[in-house]
Amino acid sequence: MDYQNYFQNNRQTHLDELTELLKIPSISALSDHKGDVQKAAEWIAGALRQAGMENVEVNPTAGHPIVTGEYLHAPGKPTVLVYGHYDVQPVDPLNLWDTPPFEPSIRDGKLYARGATDDKGQMFLHIKAVEAILKQEKEPPVNIKFCIEGEEEVGSPNLPIFLEKNQDKLAADVVVISDTSLLEPGKPAICTGLRGLCSLEVSVHTANTDLHSGTFGGGVPNALHALVALLASLHDDKGRVVVEGFYKGTPELPAELREEISKRGLDENKLAASLGLETLYGEEGYSFAERTGIRPTLELNGVYGGFQGEGSKTVIPKEAHAKITCRLVGDQDPQDILDKIDAHLQQRVQPGAKLVVKQMEKAHAFNIDPEIPMLQKAADAYEKVYGTRALFTKDGGSIPIVETLSRVLEAPAVMMGFGLPDENLHAPNEHFNLENFDKGLLTIVEYLKSL
Amino acid sequence: MDYQNYFQNNRQTHLDELTELLKIPSISALSDHKGDVQKAAEWIAGALRQAGMENVEVNPTAGHPIVTGEYLHAPGKPTVLVYGHYDVQPVDPLNLWDTPPFEPSIRDGKLYARGATDDKGQMFLHIKAVEAILKQEKEPPVNIKFCIEGEEEVGSPNLPIFLEKNQDKLAADVVVISDTSLLEPGKPAICTGLRGLCSLEVSVHTANTDLHSGTFGGGVPNALHALVALLASLHDDKGRVVVEGFYKGTPELPAELREEISKRGLDENKLAASLGLETLYGEEGYSFAERTGIRPTLELNGVYGGFQGEGSKTVIPKEAHAKITCRLVGDQDPQDILDKIDAHLQQRVQPGAKLVVKQMEKAHAFNIDPEIPMLQKAADAYEKVYGTRALFTKDGGSIPIVETLSRVLEAPAVMMGFGLPDENLHAPNEHFNLENFDKGLLTIVEYLKSL
Repeated sequence: MDYQNYFQNNRQTHLDELTELLKIPSISALSDHKGDVQKAAEWIAGALRQAGMENVEVNPTAGHPIVTGEYLHAPGKPTVLVYGHYDVQPVDPLNLWDTPPFEPSIRDGKLYARGATDDKGQMFLHIKAVEAILKQEKEPPVNIKFCIEGEEEVGSPNLPIFLEKNQDKLAADVVVISDTSLLEPGKPAICTGLRGLCSLEVSVHTANTDLHSGTFGGGVPNALHALVALLASLHDDKGRVVVEGFYKGTPELPAELREEISKRGLDENKLAASLGLETLYGEEGYSFAERTGIRPTLELNGVYGGFQGEGSKTVIPKEAHAKITCRLVGDQDPQDILDKIDAHLQQRVQPGAKLVVKQMEKAHAFNIDPEIPMLQKAADAYEKVYGTRALFTKDGGSIPIVETLSRVLEAPAVMMGFGLPDENLHAPNEHFNLENFDKGLLTIVEYLKSL
Repeated sequence: MDYQNYFQNNRQTHLDELTELLKIPSISALSDHKGDVQKAAEWIAGALRQAGMENVEVNPTAGHPIVTGEYLHAPGKPTVLVYGHYDVQPVDPLNLWDTPPFEPSIRDGKLYARGATDDKGQMFLHIKAVEAILKQEKEPPVNIKFCIEGEEEVGSPNLPIFLEKNQDKLAADVVVISDTSLLEPGKPAICTGLRGLCSLEVSVHTANTDLHSGTFGGGVPNALHALVALLASLHDDKGRVVVEGFYKGTPELPAELREEISKRGLDENKLAASLGLETLYGEEGYSFAERTGIRPTLELNGVYGGFQGEGSKTVIPKEAHAKITCRLVGDQDPQDILDKIDAHLQQRVQPGAKLVVKQMEKAHAFNIDPEIPMLQKAADAYEKVYGTRALFTKDGGSIPIVETLSRVLEAPAVMMGFGLPDENLHAPNEHFNLENFDKGLLTIVEYLKSL
């Protein structure tokens, strides 16, 4: 039986299994969901055993567990380490989901659920592709290892420690990761660059209690005034970050790179219209693809303080908060950037207000040379299944662990994405296009067989 | 029996009754509490009947009802209209209350509950004082009318219409209101000026969905960036409002007024320390008393957008919101101020963002001449009970209806406050000092008998 028939015959079973996994609300950022994250880890371990993996373990960490397994019966052949994650993003605002985030639902050939594309659905493809190969082939074409973590959405704080400790156990010739996207339907891509990341929480505190704006209004510091002034000071009116030294370490863009990026042929007006925007917006002098692919950025992800209910409340809030993330490129050092933002803010605090900055995630940008054979073979595998060779692209997102995996294990990282850019990852109505579910399985099989 | 003994003997009964009223969560701003607001209105009607009022009615309006009642059996004597409100502010953040806001609790001689001082507790004093007079006196010293509304905390949208329609029914020689404060314990005050008020909600909308900050960060408008830039543009770094024309209509401050205000002897350092602040803050060139008493102000009462949960979420929010109120003085016109803020914001919207401004409450500032005999007699009544004559002050708060009541009924408004400035009105742990509960009853009796 060829693989196409095999996957066709087992399609409903595979979808049912993935649905089981998607039902587990394994939100790593929320401590209330710790039990669910553990449950998802156990589920992955079961699926790896079912696929034929040996020495499957749910490895405890200081945070959420890391699931590992291996099948090492192809002596003399390359060893592939599959990395993925079983944790998911929070789901709010819940009211914007058309169907509940943890009740998977298929509509128009798309599977809707939190984690459908990021990354449960994509990671699951590897488990099922390997299971298929072990069932179909007399001789396994490669040695296989899995390393599936539960803290990717909170910056993988424990995986680097685990990697360092288990360098031999996890040693591989190539690390394969499916946590990125095609360029658009039918246009596969292999990501050869990821932005780095750093994040921080900023809080402003004023009086020891909320105050009445009639009695005190105009006479005391207002935590919200102090906060919005700080936040507004981070960018100029041309979309540039004005924190001193922020752009240090960002690469000069050679003309050929800018040209290659523009060759992707993204229609900015079409993109704006599809997002309901009158116009895109960002750092002056760069295209959308450049701004999101190879330029750093600083984004407010959340701001809150004072009264949020219906109607009005004449209160002067005693505290206000903001959550900020930066995407980094080139040699920007996440710790250095955090320190610079911290210093920028501390210098600008309004009299009477106190600033508390909590530094959080830190990850360097990642880049790999597309000429490496392990990447070229992946592009070939896409061509066989999609009829189009994968392009090598730079992605604006961050998978902090990719740089670490590649560095610690001294192996190239091949990012074979099967998502689509509009699949609402990290947003309401996240989904996974099942066309890429089907083609993804075949592409992974082709790739592993080609090594 | 003298009044002191009367109130002492009935103290527990009165406190039990007030507790009943305070248990009703009559939050006028929240539509979920509509039933509770109605319940509080019925409770007031019952209390007025019990006090001896006739023609007691719960008058429906387009919003919450207005309770009226009268006792007109003192021919040839003045008619006093008591105004108050039975609605309360929202209670969030709930976790900062030491005891639940709608489970009244007495600690250290203070009655804790939402509405304890603003305004259920203060308004209740008038009902009980009138009840006492009707029980104790052979001849009533005045004619009495009550007009108690349930929309003060949302800007009294329906009372002006009701007043216009019922001018004859509510006609009076003086309007008495207890919804303000003493200067400090033992130092009574009669408020002869209130700031006006206008409020608005500002929303910024960008894309039609929340977006992932990796894929889109730096390349699309971020509703939070657009909002904080707008909000930060409203003040300069000297605490002045920079909306063009904002200060038009504010009075020049004569030297004697500034001197009178400074005579109040407020220690700014002491105040800052008591609020846990390193320093007070506000419009440069003015003292705290001036900033809060006779200068206008623009305050952010709430700002929110994006992720507010634990940890981080790499989202670019599609919308962000702010709630703003201004306190107005002199001849500032609330509609004009709202229009100016609206125009200021519209001119500064970041490309790709859409601004929606919702204008809400509007009220003119109010001022009255302290030489009017009805005010002088009130100051005398305080002197009899407190041993200190009440000072005539300007208050930074707004009771939008005071100006309307005085204008429509063509009667002076006498604001006899029995609260204290630190009683946390509009904030967690609102309370009412029972010393002023006791003295308030006696002061009102003295006042009514003196007219």
